[in-house]
Amino acid sequence: MSEIGETPKPPYYAVIFTSLRTAGDNGYAEMSQKMDELAKLQKGYLGIESARENLGITVSYWESLEAIRAWHAHAEHELAQQKGYQIWYQSFKVRICRVERDYSFEKEI
Amino acid sequence: MSEIGETPKPPYYAVIFTSLRTAGDNGYAEMSQKMDELAKLQKGYLGIESARENLGITVSYWESLEAIRAWHAHAEHELAQQKGYQIWYQSFKVRICRVERDYSFEKEI
Repeated sequence: MSEIGETPKPPYYAVIFTSLRTAGDNGYAEMSQKMDELAKLQKGYLGIESARENLGITVSYWESLEAIRAWHAHAEHELAQQKGYQIWYQSFKVRICRVERDYSFEKEI
Repeated sequence: MSEIGETPKPPYYAVIFTSLRTAGDNGYAEMSQKMDELAKLQKGYLGIESARENLGITVSYWESLEAIRAWHAHAEHELAQQKGYQIWYQSFKVRICRVERDYSFEKEI
């Protein structure tokens, strides 16, 4: 289950991946979990947040643009991306951002 | 229903709002819709994307940091934010980002 990412003090980078899926699972859930686990092992990985209703939003956080590029080019991730184009996604948009400022709130119990 | 935001060529700005809700609606759904409608009327507004499972992620897009500041300080929005702290949110994190690059995909029919 996705939680609020525990990211360090800015600046750092975010990849906002917004998508609409095609019908049916077609192996998506399994690959999605595998990619989440693989991403966590990458150099410069800071966290991931994910939610889907009709629209799906996944935000992953990274130390640097170099770390984002390396993950994008990772062989197993590339294979997953190809299946994304061919099978899983009706449409998507990727936005690469520099996080400049953040703040958070936690209710006292 | 939330769709993929039709944002212009970067650079522009994104506010990533990630939250966990308290139990019950308590007027949240009505206020949330009202704030979405009000945000659309603000100067510098570019779009909004939203999804919730357990975690909720809302990303709003803006022309400038000035536009983000103005929306943050809008009187009706300030009132909604106060209720957010008092009633609706268990915890949240806000990240203010500069979108540096984007690309998108649309499946051919």
